[in-house]
Amino acid sequence: MHILITGAGGMIGRKLVDRLVREGQVGGKTIDRLTLHDIAAPEAPKGVTWKVTTRGGDIADAGEAKLLVADAPELIFHLAAVVSGEAEADFDKGYRVNVDGMRHLLEAARTRGHKPRLVFTSSIAVFGGELPDPIPDDFHTTPPNSYGAAKVICEQYLADYTRRGFVDGVGIRLPGITVRPGRPNAAASGFYSSIIREPLDGKEAILPVPLTKRNTHASPKAAVGFLMHAAALDGAALGLRRNLNMPGVAVTTGEQIEALRKIAGDKVVARIRHVPDETIMKIFPNESVRFDARRALALGFKPDKDFEEIIRIHIEEDRRGTFVA
Amino acid sequence: MHILITGAGGMIGRKLVDRLVREGQVGGKTIDRLTLHDIAAPEAPKGVTWKVTTRGGDIADAGEAKLLVADAPELIFHLAAVVSGEAEADFDKGYRVNVDGMRHLLEAARTRGHKPRLVFTSSIAVFGGELPDPIPDDFHTTPPNSYGAAKVICEQYLADYTRRGFVDGVGIRLPGITVRPGRPNAAASGFYSSIIREPLDGKEAILPVPLTKRNTHASPKAAVGFLMHAAALDGAALGLRRNLNMPGVAVTTGEQIEALRKIAGDKVVARIRHVPDETIMKIFPNESVRFDARRALALGFKPDKDFEEIIRIHIEEDRRGTFVA
Repeated sequence: MHILITGAGGMIGRKLVDRLVREGQVGGKTIDRLTLHDIAAPEAPKGVTWKVTTRGGDIADAGEAKLLVADAPELIFHLAAVVSGEAEADFDKGYRVNVDGMRHLLEAARTRGHKPRLVFTSSIAVFGGELPDPIPDDFHTTPPNSYGAAKVICEQYLADYTRRGFVDGVGIRLPGITVRPGRPNAAASGFYSSIIREPLDGKEAILPVPLTKRNTHASPKAAVGFLMHAAALDGAALGLRRNLNMPGVAVTTGEQIEALRKIAGDKVVARIRHVPDETIMKIFPNESVRFDARRALALGFKPDKDFEEIIRIHIEEDRRGTFVA
Repeated sequence: MHILITGAGGMIGRKLVDRLVREGQVGGKTIDRLTLHDIAAPEAPKGVTWKVTTRGGDIADAGEAKLLVADAPELIFHLAAVVSGEAEADFDKGYRVNVDGMRHLLEAARTRGHKPRLVFTSSIAVFGGELPDPIPDDFHTTPPNSYGAAKVICEQYLADYTRRGFVDGVGIRLPGITVRPGRPNAAASGFYSSIIREPLDGKEAILPVPLTKRNTHASPKAAVGFLMHAAALDGAALGLRRNLNMPGVAVTTGEQIEALRKIAGDKVVARIRHVPDETIMKIFPNESVRFDARRALALGFKPDKDFEEIIRIHIEEDRRGTFVA
């Protein structure tokens, strides 16, 4: 099987490549070719005998998508995106990458005519305004930012291109990905990760929201698991509804911190300072964001067990099993 | 006030122009300029002293939208669209007109920078798959066809451009427009009108679905009323949710026919032949389509009284008060 990954240089993309290399197959089909794409050409994985192509370029150029799809990859993971903070700061770039990139990819697949499975990473940013708790699977999409609006637009294209038989699409709405390794990105929600990551690294972190604020999280490992599961899913089970809320672990920031204390101790937790930030609170006005992800659960998508597991995954995958006590 | 209408040559567009001419104002603001656009230049209304510009062109060309917005119309009615049957038959044309047209218009307004009120006609075709009865205002959008998908995409652009302060948008999801005057168009739902229109014209009509099938209707007069009301609505009352289900009259085809009998008699009703059509039944699989339009009702949108009123409006507006008995 030939797999194409866009946004392959990003955090989830790299972890997905690692997993593909470890498993060597998706849904029972042996991988023999991998095409990795991002703005800068991603690194090729080591120790595989597959044909690997890496390429740097702008997915928002129609020619780029056409080129990527020319050799008919049977499975496409479309991860390339500009994050919420950047899409809000640069309106044009946000829509260019987040919508036009998807549309070019879909058009390239339609023209190529080989009907690939296309797995698209959508987001819980499709929901906004007054939200019920939990948010049902069939709740309306009213995004609070341009990033979320672009995701809904892509979901609609994906579903319609699928209905018409041009691709076989599955969109997965990722909850907050926690703990994000590395430096903070431009996402306003970055604090959910940094209050865990920075203290474990011996650094101070700021908690800008109340301890009672609840959000839903998935580890990068669980997110990669969702992608693998979506890749092998029986499309017929989805009907017209090709985009699914993913399950996650719903905890308050206070519960996140208590899980950190259990794993790493008081001294690590003492590195978190509570500095309320009105701007961030305005971006995330809901006190509790939880999802009724029963469709995804019934289809076999697996969330992390609890927030302690999410922290352990971070320490294991991104910190070689240690932290700064 | 300067008003721009796209799709002004269509059925709703022409009736909207008639109403604007009769009223001379929208929401208390006197009209002094009207720009009418369609593929072919629409006819200019007679007997007005306003500056009237009519223009033919393709709204899916970016330059066209720019030109239309150059003189900063304060109120834009964006009605231009390819109907459902045509959007399904010609995938490229459907998205070009139904999505790109909207996006060019929004971009032109953003570049112009005058923040017009933009009233957009969306559709109940945003809903599909398994539907509750009635469909709540906050139900998810899973369109059953490319026309509906394009409408959802436009709704999302409209809401986000509004949130960002580039336009002041209101999207109205029209129920079935009944009775459509003139010849059938390419909409698969055409029979809801033709079973009333053709018999009143002395012609035979085909009912392709069961007598128990229920749909929600608004007369062209009520639809124009929605547009006028949307044009003058206080945008602040809408929050992030700029797109609204419009209220309508929910009746079965059997009830439509009984209303016709009451108004026009048995001989007219005898011109309807029941010929079940599997293709059409597959396009509209739901036995009953009703809307909980409580948001629109609370905001003052007014539906027709009942289906008899809808028939009377057709006889009065489109048949000069008479029919073939």
